[in-house]
Amino acid sequence: MRQRHKPWADEFLQENNHLVVPRATDHRQNWQKVFGNDKPIHLEVGTGKGQFLIGMAKQYPEVNFIGIEISKSVIVSAAEKVLASGLDNILLLNEDASDLREMFGENEIATLYLNFSDPWPKNRHEKRRLTYQSFLEQYEEILEQDGELIFKTDNRGLFEYSLVSFTDYGMKLQEVNLDLHAINDETNVMTEYEEKFSSKGQVIYRCRARFGNSSI
Amino acid sequence: MRQRHKPWADEFLQENNHLVVPRATDHRQNWQKVFGNDKPIHLEVGTGKGQFLIGMAKQYPEVNFIGIEISKSVIVSAAEKVLASGLDNILLLNEDASDLREMFGENEIATLYLNFSDPWPKNRHEKRRLTYQSFLEQYEEILEQDGELIFKTDNRGLFEYSLVSFTDYGMKLQEVNLDLHAINDETNVMTEYEEKFSSKGQVIYRCRARFGNSSI
Repeated sequence: MRQRHKPWADEFLQENNHLVVPRATDHRQNWQKVFGNDKPIHLEVGTGKGQFLIGMAKQYPEVNFIGIEISKSVIVSAAEKVLASGLDNILLLNEDASDLREMFGENEIATLYLNFSDPWPKNRHEKRRLTYQSFLEQYEEILEQDGELIFKTDNRGLFEYSLVSFTDYGMKLQEVNLDLHAINDETNVMTEYEEKFSSKGQVIYRCRARFGNSSI
Repeated sequence: MRQRHKPWADEFLQENNHLVVPRATDHRQNWQKVFGNDKPIHLEVGTGKGQFLIGMAKQYPEVNFIGIEISKSVIVSAAEKVLASGLDNILLLNEDASDLREMFGENEIATLYLNFSDPWPKNRHEKRRLTYQSFLEQYEEILEQDGELIFKTDNRGLFEYSLVSFTDYGMKLQEVNLDLHAINDETNVMTEYEEKFSSKGQVIYRCRARFGNSSI
């Protein structure tokens, strides 16, 4: 993760457990209470240093944002930025997202973001891709009936795979962008990675998808 | 169409009505008999000057190919090339493809190709795009249960639209290529247009899709 080692990370996380919430499973189906309001909850899986989440939280104050990040040192960076931003509509979880259903109840999430997820290009690693069928099963359960999965990547192979995986699962594509930065979408919030790679001319792909039984 | 005027086109078509078959509706549900064999039938809608169809017919002698082209002068060019090729697994139809069900019966087609179809970029022309819902209804009816629609274009907007349109209709994507010429698919037969534009560095998109009730 190219992060410097942070021996004080545990202490920092303990001091900021109102922001980086420990034992996420304790709050399953109860996240709006943790936020202290009834705003819809948007979830980013693999939130990294938080640039996307913070940009979104600024742009959409009427939404609660939760970011999950497995790396302790990376989530500390994200937490520092959230604290500096003064935003109160963000929570962070330092968790492995291997089964989101342990942390979130049915229909608890309105929108789920996957940004520049690990492509796991080898066929034998297909099951690790966050758009593999077993993950879609999780997303379907925790998403609201008309909730959306919004997926952004610069990895052509992963995007191609994911479009097939989504439709194979019965999902419907709401929108597809095959060169996101060619259109002038002023609402697009860039991740750190996106900023870096799109400036090098890399094409960014994005799609919005819903689960089959949720659309008419 | 940038074709020279061919006053002798009618005469040519009459002389070659074994190849450019008139009154296609007369042969509905009967195309294998016209070919004189029971090979599966692949259909290209908008066949242009025939380069794709001829390349495919050479590559797959076990398949019957039918190409539909609305322009009389263009289909004459295609017919001349087919005659020169000596191939006997091609038929051409100089027809408007506005309702394929008038020319083909249920399940009569194994594979349907759309190559570089007119993108009709304006929203108010959506209904003219060959991947609009009303066309998908036709394709579903004339395609075999596990038949495929194979769609190739360099037009980003049309491809984005079509992916959404396919899944909205309940189709499943079998394969998506977001830069066809970046992979080394030796079976890919290029259209005239594809050859010209890909040599200029234009990305070529391709997908294979099936209708929902045909896959498990």
